[in-house]
Amino acid sequence: MKIVVDAMGGDHAPQAVISGVMEAIKELNSDIVLVGPIDRLEQELRKHSYPPHRIELLHAPEVIDMHEPATVSIRKKRNSSISVGVNLLKEAGYDAFVSAGNTGAVVCASTVNLGMMPGVERPGIGLVIPTLNKFSFLIDVGANTDPKPQHLLQSALMANVYAKEVLSLATPRIGLLNIGEEEGKGTDFQKETHKLMGERLKNFIGNIEPNEIFSGKCDCIICDGFVGNVVIKVSEGLMESASALIIREVKKSPMAMLGALLMKSCLYHVKKYADYSEYGGAPLLGVNGIVMISHGRSSPKAIKNAIRAAQREVEHKIIARMISEVAQAK
Amino acid sequence: MKIVVDAMGGDHAPQAVISGVMEAIKELNSDIVLVGPIDRLEQELRKHSYPPHRIELLHAPEVIDMHEPATVSIRKKRNSSISVGVNLLKEAGYDAFVSAGNTGAVVCASTVNLGMMPGVERPGIGLVIPTLNKFSFLIDVGANTDPKPQHLLQSALMANVYAKEVLSLATPRIGLLNIGEEEGKGTDFQKETHKLMGERLKNFIGNIEPNEIFSGKCDCIICDGFVGNVVIKVSEGLMESASALIIREVKKSPMAMLGALLMKSCLYHVKKYADYSEYGGAPLLGVNGIVMISHGRSSPKAIKNAIRAAQREVEHKIIARMISEVAQAK
Repeated sequence: MKIVVDAMGGDHAPQAVISGVMEAIKELNSDIVLVGPIDRLEQELRKHSYPPHRIELLHAPEVIDMHEPATVSIRKKRNSSISVGVNLLKEAGYDAFVSAGNTGAVVCASTVNLGMMPGVERPGIGLVIPTLNKFSFLIDVGANTDPKPQHLLQSALMANVYAKEVLSLATPRIGLLNIGEEEGKGTDFQKETHKLMGERLKNFIGNIEPNEIFSGKCDCIICDGFVGNVVIKVSEGLMESASALIIREVKKSPMAMLGALLMKSCLYHVKKYADYSEYGGAPLLGVNGIVMISHGRSSPKAIKNAIRAAQREVEHKIIARMISEVAQAK
Repeated sequence: MKIVVDAMGGDHAPQAVISGVMEAIKELNSDIVLVGPIDRLEQELRKHSYPPHRIELLHAPEVIDMHEPATVSIRKKRNSSISVGVNLLKEAGYDAFVSAGNTGAVVCASTVNLGMMPGVERPGIGLVIPTLNKFSFLIDVGANTDPKPQHLLQSALMANVYAKEVLSLATPRIGLLNIGEEEGKGTDFQKETHKLMGERLKNFIGNIEPNEIFSGKCDCIICDGFVGNVVIKVSEGLMESASALIIREVKKSPMAMLGALLMKSCLYHVKKYADYSEYGGAPLLGVNGIVMISHGRSSPKAIKNAIRAAQREVEHKIIARMISEVAQAK
């Protein structure tokens, strides 16, 4: 199996990406194809020792910046690591693409160059989020901000397969994110989507309220990309502000500072647990190929986990299974 | 000044409400009109000593449950504490209505019975949220889930007045909640709203991303009621899950338990700070009268703070000022 990795994706590229790839080839059996400006890759690779047959290099001279407008950059930079990387999936022998780069650009390049799966009209980005039980799968966190009800049904069908095959959840409970538990809650969009999901999804458990997202009550939480993006960004911001607030308060009292010192390893553990960039990437579902988006701030471990999740998608023939799941629900 | 209080609102009514009223009459100069089943009010009031001329009782035999469907309950229970209370605002001498009851029912009764302010088409619920600096004002957190761009402009104009008059912020910075900072981000709805706000709002600072909500970067954050409701519920749920997770981890290590003990008062302070039910209610803006909604789990302190905020609205002639602000922006 060959997994293509965008060496230039993320805030700490290529160092963090290449360190992650080194961890991956130790733990996983996939071979890696690193895409990026070849001189920079070679320079970085000299710092590591590894079996050379496990890593192939592919030259892509251009780099898309994290904040460039997606569609423009994909059109202009045809030799970027993202475009070149995605295009490899159309050639035999290349199985998946992993990038911690510009999310919009990855979505755009994948949609345009790979096309959509039969039966799926729009892409959705899923995200594995930690919960009190273990984890849940939230989709869409930003690909399709203005969907129709059938797009959410399609996302739910894909999420069902992903949760079963990649996250090993036997019968995932699927919920629609809504601002009330009862059936008639939300806007017309939520009401229509609820009706459609009730008719076509076997394991639909109804609405799930935003305060239940992290409780573990539901395995797959379905929402539009605008709301999903708000959910993850509010969570990130709240955790950051709460941490800053705790630090500010602790500094006011020597007793609390001692307490914090004693709790340090425990708090570190909680922070790690809550950091979903550690959970191995966000699959871009719906496009006709396996694409995994990793957080821009991804650590080497997060990159390795994203490669691991991509490998699992390949092993479980996730694309074929999703196509069949969507076809059966018609 | 007379502030009407729904004695039957909230999970701990009438005890918590009446305790809050007792605190209020000690600290504030408003007189209180308690609305509810008169026998229950009298029974509860016997537990307290207070100057009788400060509290008037008004009989409303029916109670709307926290989870009853709003429109149905308002139509059927014309003698509920919510309906009777709201209607008092149309009579001379009654200045504001405070309820910790069923939010939907309060919105519905207020909209139907008081009507809208001239120039405002839809109600919006504002919420004072704690930030790293001090606090911000988020509107709408649930009244209007499917608004048009002009409704958000109207909410922003009202928020501007509220932030100046009630929250004492001289020149509030007003932002539109969106999933990107740049002007072209979000759906067509966000783009249109951004354009309209840019043209009509003097102190518009552009888009604000969800991870910045708690940072204090922006004083008034404007969004539709669906997204705003998601924001507060995700925040509530995340804080609950994070607390549960920390407790679970702490219990695994005696060292961490000792640390937590030493940090106890600091963590309690942080928790209080972060609990926006402590910040004095959520004003229902846009209706032609002063209505304050308090969290269903409101403590006596939260009820008192809601009464204080309502009093401040009355003192600052908030309705007249909002009407004039909206008229000037045309």
